[in-house]
Amino acid sequence: MSVHPIRFENSILKVIDQKLLPHAEVVHEVSNLEGTYIAIKEMQVRGAPLIGFTALYGLGFWIKNHKDFNLDELTKACDHLKKARPTAVNLAFELDDAFPYIQELHQSNLGHNEIAEKVFELTQKKIDQLDSNNQKMANFANDWLLEKYGDRSLNLMTICNTGRLACGSMGTALGVIEECHKRNKLNNVIVPETRPYLQGSRLTSYELYKMGINHQIIVEGAFSNVLGNKMVDAIFVGADRIAANGDTANKVGTSTLSIIASHYNIPIFTVAPLTSFDLECENGSFIEIELRSDDEIKMIKNEKISHRDVNAYNPSFDITSFEHLTGIICEKGIFDPKIKNLKEQLNV
Amino acid sequence: MSVHPIRFENSILKVIDQKLLPHAEVVHEVSNLEGTYIAIKEMQVRGAPLIGFTALYGLGFWIKNHKDFNLDELTKACDHLKKARPTAVNLAFELDDAFPYIQELHQSNLGHNEIAEKVFELTQKKIDQLDSNNQKMANFANDWLLEKYGDRSLNLMTICNTGRLACGSMGTALGVIEECHKRNKLNNVIVPETRPYLQGSRLTSYELYKMGINHQIIVEGAFSNVLGNKMVDAIFVGADRIAANGDTANKVGTSTLSIIASHYNIPIFTVAPLTSFDLECENGSFIEIELRSDDEIKMIKNEKISHRDVNAYNPSFDITSFEHLTGIICEKGIFDPKIKNLKEQLNV
Repeated sequence: MSVHPIRFENSILKVIDQKLLPHAEVVHEVSNLEGTYIAIKEMQVRGAPLIGFTALYGLGFWIKNHKDFNLDELTKACDHLKKARPTAVNLAFELDDAFPYIQELHQSNLGHNEIAEKVFELTQKKIDQLDSNNQKMANFANDWLLEKYGDRSLNLMTICNTGRLACGSMGTALGVIEECHKRNKLNNVIVPETRPYLQGSRLTSYELYKMGINHQIIVEGAFSNVLGNKMVDAIFVGADRIAANGDTANKVGTSTLSIIASHYNIPIFTVAPLTSFDLECENGSFIEIELRSDDEIKMIKNEKISHRDVNAYNPSFDITSFEHLTGIICEKGIFDPKIKNLKEQLNV
Repeated sequence: MSVHPIRFENSILKVIDQKLLPHAEVVHEVSNLEGTYIAIKEMQVRGAPLIGFTALYGLGFWIKNHKDFNLDELTKACDHLKKARPTAVNLAFELDDAFPYIQELHQSNLGHNEIAEKVFELTQKKIDQLDSNNQKMANFANDWLLEKYGDRSLNLMTICNTGRLACGSMGTALGVIEECHKRNKLNNVIVPETRPYLQGSRLTSYELYKMGINHQIIVEGAFSNVLGNKMVDAIFVGADRIAANGDTANKVGTSTLSIIASHYNIPIFTVAPLTSFDLECENGSFIEIELRSDDEIKMIKNEKISHRDVNAYNPSFDITSFEHLTGIICEKGIFDPKIKNLKEQLNV
């Protein structure tokens, strides 16, 4: 059974506390803005799309709980929500995107309960839209696999976490794997643990476990061993940003994986919605890579690993060259950036 | 200052407890066989050469403490020591290698104290011999670096732990880095943490810290980021076994690193003594790769990472293809396995 990190039922938002996964499944029941604020701030929910959706539900709750609200108060509520994760672009984006619509509803003299319902509906519509786009990508990928490998069972690989826990919807690269499972074509999945934050061994492994999908966690060092031993038929990875030439920024380790895959001739695809395409960005060299705290490497959970007086170098992302990708899959289809610029292929 | 994991002074063996590194430096003082047995069994000492040397000191202590020992009792003492780490080949090898010599001393009517002294001397001689071979390799490597890069400061990289903590002597790949530091040519060292066992972030980083060498720990996923950004001039790695064609078995991650290095044209050398060459072994496909426990990946120290009901795939080593090595450095010089078979180059 697929994991649903947030679920809106009977006017209550049920939030799986992702900080406690995979060891405990704790569901918080939230029915006011402050509850969603805490869920976002305390990282009970994570992943750009999911944070945005949770915030929208929070705004809906606020409206429901404020009978005669005015737009100033609404703006303040939005601003408060945005502070839960100040650097999460999606959080601000979704709230700003919904604001004119709520303003319109407010001016049309609808009651606050009706406005709240409309906000909840809007949020669900956004989730459904993302899910439908994810499904399209999953279909493109699985049709490609069928054409390439015929009817046999497949061994797939991914990195980091790009599934329901991150997206709220089916997800990108992990959505491809879920679809393969639904089609009864999946034999095994290789899951890199994804140091330093271990999204693979903590979250992706948990999602696969819940869906009853066979998988094996590996360390990133084992890329060559695994791909050289033909344990994988195809690799699907996500992207945080895609440049016009097809270079992609994704979780550190992705570029390393793509070079190893290329060396052993294993197909590797980036799977990402059009919203991740930044076609004004010419190539990967213009994408800034966030350096994060040494402690993510020097500590694991509460365990010290290294001597405290030494340094780490902790880039959070890396740039996968378009040359090492078999293709890029979005809701419009599969594109090979080696053939020509994505701008041209997408007719933008 | 270099770390000395064991030090024999005034008839006492001082053993650094490596299990407690890098957080605490605890030195156990050992003066009998049982103390060395525990040091080996409890992994206070680790690394094939160091285990062998510690066992020899233990045998020396046993002789010293047994005035009228006979050869049967000596054999039993050896057998007991071997049980401390039953799969450590070096442990049995060193004891078996010393046995005929002790037998000879015993027959020559030397007193047990004198025999013990001779065993201590033999052990020190073996350590010195290894150290002298390590120094030769370090010189070959650093002369190569001087010729390639001239007089400028260098950024080097390694993987796992191949230094004094593993060898008792100067070490192989890490010995090259120590020599570069002594020559005042070292700017920075990149240290992969080396999952799953974290020998890099725990031990190599500690050795570099003690020597006052600048370094940065990275995750293995960051190989492409680090080498693509030209943060490294040359890479030196160890080997557990080297086949006739130059394929090498080393800690998992080494093959992955070698492919990335090859892609970015960064020189990468295997550094290993002739005792690691297995020229009867034609190529890497004949080397069996040990699969270790899932828990090494699913747990870190006492922290659970993954759900307990999922699987991991944990190869302890991988095979680096000779095609990706710039050269192999041993005490005889630098050999390029891409030119011809090592057997021919070494005239064996």
